Amino acid sequence: MNFKIQKKYLLNSIQAVSNAISSRTVIPILSGMKIDVTTEKIILTGSNSDITIQSHIPATDDGEEIITNISEGSIVLPVPHFPDIIRKLPEDIVDITVEENYKTIIKSGKAVFTLYGQSSEEYPRVLFNQDDEPLALKVKDIKTLIKQTVFAVSPMETRPILTGVHVKIEDGELTFTATDSHRLSLRGIKIDDKNFEANNIVIPGKSLQELNKIFDNDDDTVYMAILKNQVLFYTENTYFLSRLLSGNYPETDRLIPTESQTTLNIFTKDLIHTIERAALLSSRDQNNVIRLDTLDNNMIEISGHSPEIGNVKELLDVISIEGESIKISFSARYMLDSLKAIDSDRVQIRFTGPMRPFVIRTPEEEKILQLILPVRTY
Amino acid sequence: MNFKIQKKYLLNSIQAVSNAISSRTVIPILSGMKIDVTTEKIILTGSNSDITIQSHIPATDDGEEIITNISEGSIVLPVPHFPDIIRKLPEDIVDITVEENYKTIIKSGKAVFTLYGQSSEEYPRVLFNQDDEPLALKVKDIKTLIKQTVFAVSPMETRPILTGVHVKIEDGELTFTATDSHRLSLRGIKIDDKNFEANNIVIPGKSLQELNKIFDNDDDTVYMAILKNQVLFYTENTYFLSRLLSGNYPETDRLIPTESQTTLNIFTKDLIHTIERAALLSSRDQNNVIRLDTLDNNMIEISGHSPEIGNVKELLDVISIEGESIKISFSARYMLDSLKAIDSDRVQIRFTGPMRPFVIRTPEEEKILQLILPVRTY
Repeated sequence: MNFKIQKKYLLNSIQAVSNAISSRTVIPILSGMKIDVTTEKIILTGSNSDITIQSHIPATDDGEEIITNISEGSIVLPVPHFPDIIRKLPEDIVDITVEENYKTIIKSGKAVFTLYGQSSEEYPRVLFNQDDEPLALKVKDIKTLIKQTVFAVSPMETRPILTGVHVKIEDGELTFTATDSHRLSLRGIKIDDKNFEANNIVIPGKSLQELNKIFDNDDDTVYMAILKNQVLFYTENTYFLSRLLSGNYPETDRLIPTESQTTLNIFTKDLIHTIERAALLSSRDQNNVIRLDTLDNNMIEISGHSPEIGNVKELLDVISIEGESIKISFSARYMLDSLKAIDSDRVQIRFTGPMRPFVIRTPEEEKILQLILPVRTY
Repeated sequence: MNFKIQKKYLLNSIQAVSNAISSRTVIPILSGMKIDVTTEKIILTGSNSDITIQSHIPATDDGEEIITNISEGSIVLPVPHFPDIIRKLPEDIVDITVEENYKTIIKSGKAVFTLYGQSSEEYPRVLFNQDDEPLALKVKDIKTLIKQTVFAVSPMETRPILTGVHVKIEDGELTFTATDSHRLSLRGIKIDDKNFEANNIVIPGKSLQELNKIFDNDDDTVYMAILKNQVLFYTENTYFLSRLLSGNYPETDRLIPTESQTTLNIFTKDLIHTIERAALLSSRDQNNVIRLDTLDNNMIEISGHSPEIGNVKELLDVISIEGESIKISFSARYMLDSLKAIDSDRVQIRFTGPMRPFVIRTPEEEKILQLILPVRTY
């Protein structure tokens, strides 16, 4: 096996598949990176128990020669040594040759590295069954869906299903939902394909965080295919496969209040800054609980209290307050997570009483919802 | 006690003294920041068992009013709460009032913070005895002395004196020396005051790392005064006091070879990059040991060997090789620390045999020296 390649292309691919490789794997060969060389392209693969990432580098791209001197073969090389070596090579071209006993010679400029590789025969076979009719999405849409929901998954394995994001495709709409049972994030987007349907697909939150790092170009099309127990996202040269969580995701629709007693319209940035200040003097052992009181004249008061340290009160002008007055306590951290994810100048918060979940939406006509459970403080 | 101050000045001072405050202090009051208010200025103090930092903010500066509404007093406020609050205030002006029972009200814009302070009576009294004739230095010179030596102090408390940097002032020269007994760094600079003398002053390495963060303006003058068991560095508004280490610093002069068998002249950056590559495949349990072999035609070979992973060899053109050929092994980490500290385009390395310490200097007429002990590898 031999090939000569432009370093920058190899580096990009190494970067992508590295995200799937962990040194703490129980299957030793998965601590390495697999390289398959064919006359048309090189394929890099990284894998762990949750995800597998493949990156393809074509031999030529738009007439530009990326890879030359190709002779076919496969090898598994040690990580982080192989990526570190490529990153620090002295020249823009690198020549890689596999000799007998998987001894791999990496040459660039006057530097010659020898790495002891492993047989690719031992590497688990990964099948990327591209579906006949995958769902086509824009990279920026999938990134928005992930960013606005994934932070709300449960970090705890006590209810494993809640560590994932629920994916539903129905009536021309793709919806992500995440909840840790104290808060819930939901985001839906319109899709062109009205016939594509799926339900009870639960993707591990960690997989989605990795997926979010893989695709750079917002305007690229990414295809999503739901396989047996797995979901595949792919572009022309990058394949991302994740296992799905088994079990039934809880019915979350009934948690969302359908009425409201108090509605606040508010500038998002003002609210974020005021809550950040209140969180400085809030009880650490209760997720930084702070309090919101509506006042007259379109004003609210945000306050925090930290036993033995001090307290803070701040008045904030809002755009409007409709309905009844309310005093309510909640986690500053959950509120900040939601407000920062929402990415809108203004937000609307609807309360249905001090002990009932409240809902944050944007004034735009988007399917977006952040729900937070209040905290009883007295 | 009351004052109104421009936030940016208060923030700068808080930043400086925060470096001395640790939450892990054995004296509870030292976990706080002390504020003294007089009609002319505000003084902030932070302290731990090693260092004390004071920052003065004058009420007016060049006719500009920095502090107004002054009524005198003292208070100790909790850290990190007080710094965090000032950092996140909504407006550029902050009003601070101490009421009864050390209750401190901090107002800015529509935000009102209450912090429970402590009496400053309990704060240890720190004396900044400014010497009659301190040594005047440029900030950039003291920073150079620290940067080029402090990394070589011992991180281990087995020989406490080696955790400090030895300071000697003699014959119009100020010299810093640090060694962990495997390597030694020495840097001297000329000083104007030919009569100032000091020896066996050993400043904790950690104190010097903090000192290096305090003074920003390279061209400012900083004064150094050696007190009983302490050293004081100060500018007009910032005071930095450190304890000294007790005990006798070892005689290091006799460690430095006076002759050499092999002299290499080399471009620093080329050598750094080649050693970084060799370090990727070197034995981790021996401080990344690599090997240097001189070859003919002004070339050297740098090589690394990592058992079970692989090896690397790289040829490097050097400016000149004088004297006998040599094969020598050493820690890549020590070598990189020294080369990066030296800050010169070219370096000269003098060897006196494969098992004798070698010395790195610059071609410039500077008193700078990095000494490294080789490693026996066979």
